[in-house]
Amino acid sequence: MLDIRTELTTNPKEKPAVDELGFGHYFTDHMFIVEYTEGKGWHDAKITQYQPIPMYPSSMVFHYGQSVFEGLKAYKTVDGEVLLFRPDRNFARLNKSNERLVIPAIDEEFALEALKQLVSIDRDWVPNALGTSLYIRPFIIATEANLGVHPSKNYKFIIIMSPSGSYYKGGINPVKIMVEQQFVRAVKGGTGEAKTGGNYASALKGQEIAEKEGYAQTLWLDGKENKYVEEVGSMNIFFKINGTVITPELNGSILAGITRDSMIQVLKSKNVPVEERRISINEIVEASHNGTLEEVFGTGTAAVISPVGELKYLDEKLIINDGKIGEVSQMLYDTLTGIQNGTIEDTFGWTIKL
Amino acid sequence: MLDIRTELTTNPKEKPAVDELGFGHYFTDHMFIVEYTEGKGWHDAKITQYQPIPMYPSSMVFHYGQSVFEGLKAYKTVDGEVLLFRPDRNFARLNKSNERLVIPAIDEEFALEALKQLVSIDRDWVPNALGTSLYIRPFIIATEANLGVHPSKNYKFIIIMSPSGSYYKGGINPVKIMVEQQFVRAVKGGTGEAKTGGNYASALKGQEIAEKEGYAQTLWLDGKENKYVEEVGSMNIFFKINGTVITPELNGSILAGITRDSMIQVLKSKNVPVEERRISINEIVEASHNGTLEEVFGTGTAAVISPVGELKYLDEKLIINDGKIGEVSQMLYDTLTGIQNGTIEDTFGWTIKL
Ligand SMILES: Cc1ncc(COP(=O)(O)O)c(C=O)c1O
Ligand SMILES: Cc1ncc(COP(=O)(O)O)c(C=O)c1O
Repeated sequence: MLDIRTELTTNPKEKPAVDELGFGHYFTDHMFIVEYTEGKGWHDAKITQYQPIPMYPSSMVFHYGQSVFEGLKAYKTVDGEVLLFRPDRNFARLNKSNERLVIPAIDEEFALEALKQLVSIDRDWVPNALGTSLYIRPFIIATEANLGVHPSKNYKFIIIMSPSGSYYKGGINPVKIMVEQQFVRAVKGGTGEAKTGGNYASALKGQEIAEKEGYAQTLWLDGKENKYVEEVGSMNIFFKINGTVITPELNGSILAGITRDSMIQVLKSKNVPVEERRISINEIVEASHNGTLEEVFGTGTAAVISPVGELKYLDEKLIINDGKIGEVSQMLYDTLTGIQNGTIEDTFGWTIKL
Repeated sequence: MLDIRTELTTNPKEKPAVDELGFGHYFTDHMFIVEYTEGKGWHDAKITQYQPIPMYPSSMVFHYGQSVFEGLKAYKTVDGEVLLFRPDRNFARLNKSNERLVIPAIDEEFALEALKQLVSIDRDWVPNALGTSLYIRPFIIATEANLGVHPSKNYKFIIIMSPSGSYYKGGINPVKIMVEQQFVRAVKGGTGEAKTGGNYASALKGQEIAEKEGYAQTLWLDGKENKYVEEVGSMNIFFKINGTVITPELNGSILAGITRDSMIQVLKSKNVPVEERRISINEIVEASHNGTLEEVFGTGTAAVISPVGELKYLDEKLIINDGKIGEVSQMLYDTLTGIQNGTIEDTFGWTIKL
């Protein structure tokens, strides 16, 4: 395994107040960086001060979008311990994204070791108020200074960390979501399954339109037939219809969410019927009409669960569960956040204590 | 119009030898930068030394791919003058890309003025050997240091320039191109029509597979039906069938190439029948089988024209015009490069003299 050089800052920052945290705005004192050079592999790993990095304007990431990223969290438990939630899954997914974007693989064990060292060093940055966490962003960017369209010969793999506030300050409020008709986020054969910048850039326009109409997010349909449900901006989506929980299967154009996988496992452990399969928007509209659409919720690292209270499709507004969080959603939220806070025993083996 | 501050380098670089130029590897002494801040607009325009820029690791372009770019060239004429080729079209297209990527518009006239000043300052960097040129890369990147998924509040618009060698050192050699079956570059409703990094990142994997099989590029089919011809990696595509030149219409998922548009105008001016329409890969295979597929060529700023000598589709290899450049391709190449070199009169009003 590579050595990690540590250069601690001599100039630690003041920590922001807990209720000013928000999301993704403040960064901890340190970051991890390792370099890749063709022919040499990954080298020069270090933990150093969080600071600007000098980049040539010709760096490939600025032009050809060759980049991948991950998102996970560290939680402070009620006992003051720091837990990571399924970090191995994030590094495995990063390598899947790497494959699609023709970026060299990282050593997953080494990445986990680096992450543990980094979080330990900035341990005091993990906030401990209920619902808060330390958001962790590993990412890889193409740094070769060259305008030829080909896979870069140089990369940087960086981990930065941002203390983040509670997603649900005033309690869990269901969101309103709009089914996107004009724009497409991803298509089979494209990069939808990878966590790469282009997917998010592509989604901004639909998101903007939804927000203008008063919706929090867009629900994306498939790019071929504009018919099957895919996912929300940065969440997977679940529907409870007539007692069964249904989520779109991993079809190659949606992200394999780690929260999604965790939810499916929790549902199975509680004997709630759950199906991963193709589901059309028409099936959902029908279920709403005949009164069997019981709950809709998104899942993702940021919010854990985001219940959907209204779904707009074409000219119709489907109201779900009277705009209130459903029973299963609440149970899933309580179970997952309980495991993350250390108040519920982790029988799944998902958490890693630092 | 914004003022452009000029800080000339005190340390000009040595210019590389003409036959070492290649593409996109060397950069001139200067670059242009202007900043955008929400609420303030574009400000602080300057021409300064080409050098690394400090970027926060949380800059949005690294994570969410919010970036757009352009590519054009300056040519030295046989009389030693410097010409720009249709630069107004590039800045107009940049603004179309901006719109799709939710990036604020630039002032096209101001951008052209900045470009002229920059090229004038680095005028000695425009190489003058036959077939060489100064490649110009305007681009915009999202620089807000924030991990929320939303349009950035800060941007940099930068122009860098790279002297580039002759594309056809040993004469025009037709290339072999493979029709991509597994991967998709873009789909209607996606970002295919915009010049944004994600499209190129997405294309790397297909490109890699094509190269492993000995093909120079992939020909992309549409993302919905996998049936209609779209474009090549960084070129639009034309087919001459039974005397008529056909190119895919601008359908929302391909780039509106400026060379493509120029070729159509030249063809019309020479009374060669030309059609912009949907064309299926089957129509091309049939034309090859019945002997009416006369020429195939790609068009783009880099090569002007790239004749295709072989097209691989499924298990079949279509050989076009015995693997030699066709008459119309040659005429188009001679006309366009003649206008660019100043040896043919520019009756279209495409060139701007510095
Ligand atoms: C597009 C997309 N889908 C789904 C998810 C949910 O994935 P996870 O549960 O691993 O956070 C995310 C966010 O991380 C995402 O960006
Ligand atoms: C995807 C794509 N298509 C087509 C083209 C050709 O466009 P233009 O003729 O403007 O160079 C380019 C290159 O610039 C390109 O990147």
